[in-house]
This record gives sequence, C-alpha cells and structure tokens, in this order.
Amino acid sequence: MDSQRQEIMRAKLAALWEEVRELSLGTTPSVDRLDGPPTPLTFLRDYVSANKPCVISNATLHWPALSLWTQDEYLRRAMEGRHVSVHLTPDGRADALSRHPQDPSSLSSAHVRRGVPFEEALGLVIDSSSSSAVAYCQEQNDCLSSEYSALAGDADADIGWATEALGRPPEAVNLWIGGGRSETWFHKDHYENLYAVVSGKKHFLLLPPTDAHRLYIRWYPATSYNDVNGRLKLALVLERHVPWCSVDPYSPSEEEEERQRSSYPLYFEGPQPIQCTVNPGDILYL
Amino acid sequence: MDSQRQEIMRAKLAALWEEVRELSLGTTPSVDRLDGPPTPLTFLRDYVSANKPCVISNATLHWPALSLWTQDEYLRRAMEGRHVSVHLTPDGRADALSRHPQDPSSLSSAHVRRGVPFEEALGLVIDSSSSSAVAYCQEQNDCLSSEYSALAGDADADIGWATEALGRPPEAVNLWIGGGRSETWFHKDHYENLYAVVSGKKHFLLLPPTDAHRLYIRWYPATSYNDVNGRLKLALVLERHVPWCSVDPYSPSEEEEERQRSSYPLYFEGPQPIQCTVNPGDILYL
Repeated sequence: MDSQRQEIMRAKLAALWEEVRELSLGTTPSVDRLDGPPTPLTFLRDYVSANKPCVISNATLHWPALSLWTQDEYLRRAMEGRHVSVHLTPDGRADALSRHPQDPSSLSSAHVRRGVPFEEALGLVIDSSSSSAVAYCQEQNDCLSSEYSALAGDADADIGWATEALGRPPEAVNLWIGGGRSETWFHKDHYENLYAVVSGKKHFLLLPPTDAHRLYIRWYPATSYNDVNGRLKLALVLERHVPWCSVDPYSPSEEEEERQRSSYPLYFEGPQPIQCTVNPGDILYL
Repeated sequence: MDSQRQEIMRAKLAALWEEVRELSLGTTPSVDRLDGPPTPLTFLRDYVSANKPCVISNATLHWPALSLWTQDEYLRRAMEGRHVSVHLTPDGRADALSRHPQDPSSLSSAHVRRGVPFEEALGLVIDSSSSSAVAYCQEQNDCLSSEYSALAGDADADIGWATEALGRPPEAVNLWIGGGRSETWFHKDHYENLYAVVSGKKHFLLLPPTDAHRLYIRWYPATSYNDVNGRLKLALVLERHVPWCSVDPYSPSEEEEERQRSSYPLYFEGPQPIQCTVNPGDILYL
C-alpha cells in the first residue's frame, strides 16, 4: 500500500472512531453513571439496545454480601469444608501475552489448581500482594451456585430490572476473588454482562466493538504456567494457537512501551479507551 | 469458482438462511400477531431489539380515520382546496425494474405531478383500476402534517407504546393513498417503521436483512416516466445509476419467470419470504 492510500485509509478509520463515539457512546469520555437502578425500559432502550455501557450506583446496597464479604472471618466460616479453583500467575497477568524463552510472543494462561480448600485459597489471595505467585479465585461456570453456593444467599439471585429488560434470568453468575495485582488482558465477551463489585475496586478500559482493528488481533501460540517445585514456569501448549489482542496498554518497561507504540499505532495514536472504576454497590453494564 | 467450491458455498448460505430464521424470526413461516398493543418493554425487548417484525391487531380502532377515510365524500370535503402529489405509472409498479427500449434493464420511477387538487388526485386513484395510468398519492416527507394536515386530526399524532419504547416521537408520518394495482419493489428502509392500514389491505413480502445477497443487488440506469401528451413514456435519466434488487417475485409472464429463476437461484431456490397481510386497525412493525 503506497503512502497516499495509507493516509486515506487512516483518515477513514479516524472518521469511524469519531462517528462511533458520537453515535453510541456520546462525546463525553466517561461512562454514563446512574444514581440508582433504571426502569427495565430505560435500561433496555438507552443502554442495551444502544450497545452502550453504564455504571449503576446504589444498585446492590441491600445485598448482605456488601458488609459480610469484607470480613475474612465470615468467608472462612461460611465456606468451611468447601473446595475452590485458584488461578496462579507470577505477575497477576493471566491470558496475557508474555515472553517465553522458546517464543518471545505467546499467550500465557494461569496455572489452575482445583479442589483447593477455601481457607488456603483465600490465604493465597491475601498473600499475593507480596508473594511470587498471584492468586485469583475464579471459575467461569456459574460458580456462585456451585463452588461458592454457601455464599449465594448473600446476594440477590438476579438483578430484577435486568432480568425484566432482557427477558430472562442470568445464564451464569460468577464470583471473582482477587487482589490489586490481578489484571485481565484486553478481550471481548459475547454476553451481556453486569459486573457488580462487592469489595475493593475494579478499573476497566473499554473500547467500542468497532475498534477491534485497533487491538491488532493476531494468532499466538498458547502456553500455560506449570507449578515446578513451587515455582511457576511457562510451558508451551503444543499445536494450539489462539487469536489474541496484541496491544498492552500498560507496558512493564519504557523499552516495551516504545516497541508497542511503534508496532500498534492505531491503538496508541487513536482515541483513548474509556476509563471506568467500579466501586462496591455499583454495577457496570457492558 | 469450480463446482465443488460452489457447492460448499451454497451449503454455507443455506445454513445461514436457516440459522437467521431460527434465531430471530422463529421457525413459523408467519409474522407474530399480537391481539392488541404491547407494553413498551415487550415491544422493545421482543421485537425492536430482536429486529423481528410483528403485526399488532386492534391497534388503531379508536382512530376516527378508520370510519371517516372510507368515505370519499368526507375526504373530499376535509381536503377541499388542498393540493397533493400524485405518482403515476402505467402499471402500478414504481421504482421497479422494467424494459426500456434503449436499455432492457433499467429502474423506472413514477411520473410525479405535484400541486394536484386533492379531488382530482383522488379521482385518478379511483380510476386506476381500469385506467392506463395507475395513480398513487404519496410523498415521503412527513406529508400527514403538510399536504394532508387537514386529515391529521383523525389519527393519533404518535403511537404511545412505540414512542415510549423508542424514546422519541416519529420522525415522519407519511400517508399513502393507492389502489389494488399499486405495487412496491423489494427494497430496504433504514428506519424503524410502523405501518398502519386505515382502509383496504396491504400485502407484504419480508426477508431478513441477512438475505440481501439473495436479491442480487446490481447497478441499474435510472429512468423515469414522463407525461407525453397524456401517455406515460420512460425517459433515461442520464448519468445516474442506482443499486437495486434484481429479483421480481411476481413475474408478468412465464418467459420472464423462467429467466428470473435461472438468473437468481439464491432467491427462488431458498426459503420463501414471509408473507403478511395488514388489515384496517392493524399495525405492522418492521
């Protein structure tokens, strides 16, 4: 492609980025924040149908979980005798691109330990801030009603206004327990998501679906961490390649940031992703 | 493309046709028919968001128009001194592909007479069943509040449940007055449409948007009918080509039907369009 055609293409892409933002996200650089639960009609019309994220504040203040789950002692007692899954990485970055000795650019998944007594799992999460392994308790299989069923009664079984708007109860309710080092790579979900924070904070970077081309999705060999005598090491998962976003918005070094900026200009030179912080009592719809 | 690849492609297209019908239209070959106005939430959730047409019966029975507009005398009196636009074609087929002497396949638009006294225009529509020109009173410019404002009070200014579901009143309300010979070629609209029949019947053939490839959209030279000493003749509109659907579901002759079937197999060999008849008091959402 010669430089003139390239310039035309860039101008067209820039127009797309702007139009999508005007059309569906509004021109403010932040996510709409509602003071309380919307009516089902408002939620469906102004957000779901418009494919537009929003934060609903004061959405879950009546859940006992908001006060109970901040107490480790309560969690330990309620989950006594239960076993859960723990995802372990050396740096908190699961499903992230990393540098494997045999392959400088590969996608690395966490080492998953299943059947861990909850008390031990919680200890690993708490220790993560200072340990060489970062633990994240999760299982994306409706785990609030399975591994964590002992805690399910502390939250509503569904979000009434969303169930009515979408015409069905949630397909899955997942619980994540992690700390400040846990980080999730850019990805897309095929589902309507309602993300409720019970304790702590979660920071999101959001891009509209039409910005997918800015993330340079490429095929990467899949690797996963193995526990080798208590140390997490990457192992190549042979014969399997997966499409993944190349862009890392938070580079670990200046050198890496420089490489990112020159390799992925459509991301770094285009509009910033929308930043959004979800606090206890908030629900992010996305 | 060799025949094996062609076969694979056809099988994939057939799977698409079937999946779209399962996903959004349901597996019945007819449009959902509701007994009365839906709630705004039901309408938005089950039809607008699902991009699924429906007929709402008993939707406009309270409009005075339903009894008044069947009386020609009422229309003449109410519209006395008003002027309207009349679209004239020799066969009732406006914006249709037709055979022009200089170009066997061109898109022909109606001859439009503007500023016709309403009484004369209505006479032309009534005479259309036996005349050499078929008249259709229309103007897609919110004409119920302009040319036909004298009649606007006979219908609600908006459809309450739709205004609430879509979050805004209608952008335009158009009135069409035509007879049994008026026919509209396959086309798409960029808008959410609510089509209310006040008198007579309207038959629709509907295809999901993903079936667009089955209509063989091609570029055709634009022509329009001119009134030459009282006879409608086609004139080429120079330098203008428009993309238009090639398929004619109702061929005027066996020979033409044979040509259509062999030229447009994806239409004729695939699933039939959904047929739907809208009666007085009904609204079709599409």
